[in-house]
Amino acid sequence: MDQGAITDVLDGRWAEVRRMIRDQVAAAEFLESHELDTERHRAQVYEQLAELAASGRQRLGFAAEYGGGDDVGGSLVSFEMLGFGDLSLMVKAGVQWGLFGGAVQLLGTARHHERYLRPIMDLELPGCFAMTETGHGSDVANLRTTATYDPASAEFVVDTPHEAARKDYIGNAARDGRMAVVFAQLVTEGESRGVHAFLVPIRDENGNTAPGVRIEDCGRKAGLNGVDNGRLSFAGVRVPRAALLNAYGDVAVDGTYSSSIESDSRRFFTMLGALIRGRVSVAGSAGNATKRALAIAVRYGEARRQFARPGDPDEVVLLDYRAHQRKLLPALAKTYALHFAQEELVGALHDLSNQGDSAEVDEHRQRELESRAAGVKAFATWHATSSIQTAREACGGAGYLAENVLPALKADTDVFTTFEGDNTVLLQLVAKGLLTSYKDHFEELSPLATARFVAEQFVGTVMERTAARKLIDRLVDAGPGNDDDATLLDRGWQVKAFCDREEHLLDGAAARLRRVSDDDADPFEVFNGAQDHLLHAASAHVERILLEAFVAGVDRCADPAAKALLDKVCDLFVLSTIEADRAWFLEHGRLTSARSKAVVATVNELCAELRPHASILVDAFAIPEQFIAAAPIAAGAERGRQDVMRAHDAAVR
Amino acid sequence: MDQGAITDVLDGRWAEVRRMIRDQVAAAEFLESHELDTERHRAQVYEQLAELAASGRQRLGFAAEYGGGDDVGGSLVSFEMLGFGDLSLMVKAGVQWGLFGGAVQLLGTARHHERYLRPIMDLELPGCFAMTETGHGSDVANLRTTATYDPASAEFVVDTPHEAARKDYIGNAARDGRMAVVFAQLVTEGESRGVHAFLVPIRDENGNTAPGVRIEDCGRKAGLNGVDNGRLSFAGVRVPRAALLNAYGDVAVDGTYSSSIESDSRRFFTMLGALIRGRVSVAGSAGNATKRALAIAVRYGEARRQFARPGDPDEVVLLDYRAHQRKLLPALAKTYALHFAQEELVGALHDLSNQGDSAEVDEHRQRELESRAAGVKAFATWHATSSIQTAREACGGAGYLAENVLPALKADTDVFTTFEGDNTVLLQLVAKGLLTSYKDHFEELSPLATARFVAEQFVGTVMERTAARKLIDRLVDAGPGNDDDATLLDRGWQVKAFCDREEHLLDGAAARLRRVSDDDADPFEVFNGAQDHLLHAASAHVERILLEAFVAGVDRCADPAAKALLDKVCDLFVLSTIEADRAWFLEHGRLTSARSKAVVATVNELCAELRPHASILVDAFAIPEQFIAAAPIAAGAERGRQDVMRAHDAAVR
Repeated sequence: MDQGAITDVLDGRWAEVRRMIRDQVAAAEFLESHELDTERHRAQVYEQLAELAASGRQRLGFAAEYGGGDDVGGSLVSFEMLGFGDLSLMVKAGVQWGLFGGAVQLLGTARHHERYLRPIMDLELPGCFAMTETGHGSDVANLRTTATYDPASAEFVVDTPHEAARKDYIGNAARDGRMAVVFAQLVTEGESRGVHAFLVPIRDENGNTAPGVRIEDCGRKAGLNGVDNGRLSFAGVRVPRAALLNAYGDVAVDGTYSSSIESDSRRFFTMLGALIRGRVSVAGSAGNATKRALAIAVRYGEARRQFARPGDPDEVVLLDYRAHQRKLLPALAKTYALHFAQEELVGALHDLSNQGDSAEVDEHRQRELESRAAGVKAFATWHATSSIQTAREACGGAGYLAENVLPALKADTDVFTTFEGDNTVLLQLVAKGLLTSYKDHFEELSPLATARFVAEQFVGTVMERTAARKLIDRLVDAGPGNDDDATLLDRGWQVKAFCDREEHLLDGAAARLRRVSDDDADPFEVFNGAQDHLLHAASAHVERILLEAFVAGVDRCADPAAKALLDKVCDLFVLSTIEADRAWFLEHGRLTSARSKAVVATVNELCAELRPHASILVDAFAIPEQFIAAAPIAAGAERGRQDVMRAHDAAVR
Repeated sequence: MDQGAITDVLDGRWAEVRRMIRDQVAAAEFLESHELDTERHRAQVYEQLAELAASGRQRLGFAAEYGGGDDVGGSLVSFEMLGFGDLSLMVKAGVQWGLFGGAVQLLGTARHHERYLRPIMDLELPGCFAMTETGHGSDVANLRTTATYDPASAEFVVDTPHEAARKDYIGNAARDGRMAVVFAQLVTEGESRGVHAFLVPIRDENGNTAPGVRIEDCGRKAGLNGVDNGRLSFAGVRVPRAALLNAYGDVAVDGTYSSSIESDSRRFFTMLGALIRGRVSVAGSAGNATKRALAIAVRYGEARRQFARPGDPDEVVLLDYRAHQRKLLPALAKTYALHFAQEELVGALHDLSNQGDSAEVDEHRQRELESRAAGVKAFATWHATSSIQTAREACGGAGYLAENVLPALKADTDVFTTFEGDNTVLLQLVAKGLLTSYKDHFEELSPLATARFVAEQFVGTVMERTAARKLIDRLVDAGPGNDDDATLLDRGWQVKAFCDREEHLLDGAAARLRRVSDDDADPFEVFNGAQDHLLHAASAHVERILLEAFVAGVDRCADPAAKALLDKVCDLFVLSTIEADRAWFLEHGRLTSARSKAVVATVNELCAELRPHASILVDAFAIPEQFIAAAPIAAGAERGRQDVMRAHDAAVR
């Protein structure tokens, strides 16, 4: 089996970018730094950031007219590749070019682009993305920072009214940032116009804090200590009128407010929607961190032996144990599914971005993409947290040593489940989007409005195919008419099972929300009572998206042997997913007891069948070897020790 | 509701010890140290260890004739209480007095006790417990270190034959230890007699490494960096004949080996069995670390608000959301269950220890206890890992900051799932014990021997009641004859459901293992093919133990209101446990679809009913306030901010 054929499918549309980065990284010294204290780690990451700036890759996502590469997809893939290395660097780069630079590009206009994009790309102007406040992380439409327009001086006055309105956890703030995109309630002519973004200098070129600005250091964190997170407060900080990033709303010199979008809320969520690249990057790098952890654990599981097999002096390799296969292989299968979904997502986002300002962006498609990015981000980051934990445990005490990399992977990725959107909140939004057919902006609808909308308008689920529409429809049509055990491995049956579950869960959630029309209904109680149902529906939806992306990915594979292997990995993803939720399938008459038990048995069989290919499947990720070899247990140390021990034992016998 | 009534039940038999420690700790400065580098952290923990030695509490577990307290239970509770603080101190104390001191006491004889116990208790002789090797962590009967008796000099020669035989991850080795209990294959008269323990000096009083000994530092770890883990290798290190801890086997001057236990393997597992206190301590401190994390998350969830309720300017408190209740309250219920099971376990171990050397220790009871300790340890530590993770996520970005303690709790407890026995291996041993009715020593039976034993002798499961036997039997007898929704909350039905599942899973596992008798059966394949089934059976067994302990605990509660509340917490434990495994109940006709859905609905209802009592339930743990207040988000900072914000908002409106 040529693992290269699998790598080709995984590398996909931006294979060139991936290969280029692998070559560059192989030459550089981007390694872990678990021996560094906070300040030295921050300094090292800043140096690495400067090297990255010199590579030019950070330009990919920016507009060509300002020296960028006009390649959103390439840019996202490039962030994703940073997920193989020190995740502090990935986050630091994401803050500088994805969030800070992205906000200037997407929320600003020519006056901002001309002045700032080049220095941002070149890291001459390190910046921050100051949205989250101590008191508002999820509900960002209700941020409390204010920017009040003063027509007398044609300036905005930025204020932090109380401690809960501090900008908090802001990357680049504690040490390096010189400017921040500050999200604040815009007040003009005595009226609040919702949240807008402003460019606010926070330090001068010598690193002195700007007047009226207070900067605190968030201090030590569980991980990502190469990123200097801080808190920002503003006391009457004045910035010129032009500091408003005015792509979606503007204030004239006399204080008159204007915007092409009438509703304050809708405008803000349109702005937020423009910024989904951050979530996509987090999902991608979580995926690559997961791959790295699984690669280390699989290498160790292939070398490590424990307990002798009866009649055989050699001890059994860990991966030969069913319990060990059960830990690592379904996680590996899901990692493949997420990779393909990520690849789809990046492609779709790239294509949408390329419609440019001229074409009217397809709003429905934009919202569907926002939803998909949220769902994939939630799944990818939870999967990272659980798989890296599993990988750590699968390596025993060795997995607990910093030198074996897993501790850093675990600690660094941990926050991914709650930053760039708390996963639970994101999944809830996915459900809302489905129930309202993306009629409104992704994060816009309140629980009450959602419930009302559903009560009035929801007529049933429409399955929107995300990938390889025709292929999927064909599979579904060709699926078996009746259920028997053999059909568990029929792709048509599998896709239908996922779709059916999603539809049923959504219809049920809608029925619950409709109770809001009852006379005595408390809208919050109605919504809250349906919350676990909504989250389940959203999960079923995301799992369907993953499956469709996986199916499309397998279909793109030209090599027959590689394709057959990927097909089996897809089967494992499907059946381990059904296994985990098989109570639902049983409760709703979708599986008989016998077939449900057959699902469990088939997962075991698939694990056994895939076990000999575990190494190929992790090697196919084509993680630059230095990132694997950084962990002695994956670099062959374990195999070497086992070989010496076996030779010694044989000599003694 | 008086939370004190709940605290009284939780404090249980060693309430005095718990209260004394709370008072002492309240006065001391045992706080987190996330700003310390490795060396300073190690130094601080050593200082704290010395303070602990001065307190005299470490004497509790030792024999009175050498200055100890003859109070095994009190000693275990005292280790458990250390779980509220810096877990590095807990582990360091556990190494010094539990593992090192415990091995000298339990595996040694008078000549060792007289010479070493006092300096060990007083920390004049810091020591290590050197069992694990790089190549053997789980399969410790096959350690490769050798101790060869040389009759010419009446010495043992200790050797590390190759790198995989290094003693690895050894606490106290890298910095402080002066002596190690080294586990090695005893070779005398040219014959190996299995693993025995030897006292080997590794450093002199000035800290210089002893001749022939090589000490390496394991370096930075994911957590527990206040513990100096290291690696020990031996090259022809000579120790006197008396260095053998000879309670279970001895070598005469001429090299003749003698032991009261014939079989080498059986002898070693008897020695291991004597050392189960380590596992019990790990389970206890994992439980207390979990309580601390949940207390922090509940306090935050009670203060933190996000998203406004329709028609109400105030935002909703996080714990009012069903999804948030679902995260924290079932975890809290299971924490209660584990606490009661731990309390039972400590009591049983204490009583067994007090039978003393004179009485013939009940072997069956000893083995059942070893099994229970393994099961409770596995469950308590996995529960710690998942609950502390949940608590971290429930606190969002604030939970990621080191100052809020959760990162240290997470990182420090992580290794608990794989040290003092890998959890998966431990659960497998629990299943083996059940299938063989504890006929053989806990860790002794090989897969082949187990399968053969089962094939020949297993006749069906016998439910051994662990707690409040009569009460449980009465509940079961009084349980409803037929199933309807109302019975989900009937304790008799619940206990029966747990027992029935355990029996059925064990019978099924036995049936699988019997296939080893088939002519063409490969014993390893038979065993491996049943592995997931065995692990499920073991889990069902441990969950039944937890339930019985919970029931007995509730029964001990004298206060009616407190008892009613605990009853509800027990219901939530039971039904969330059934919910998680309800596919099994459905597949095996134990629940209809309708009843299975009712289980989910009842978990939701119980969460809502317990939500107003969440604070009381965490306050009842009586965690010394300083350990909660160490986290600003739990010390009222969040509530203060929210109050200021609401006052400000009201003024603006």
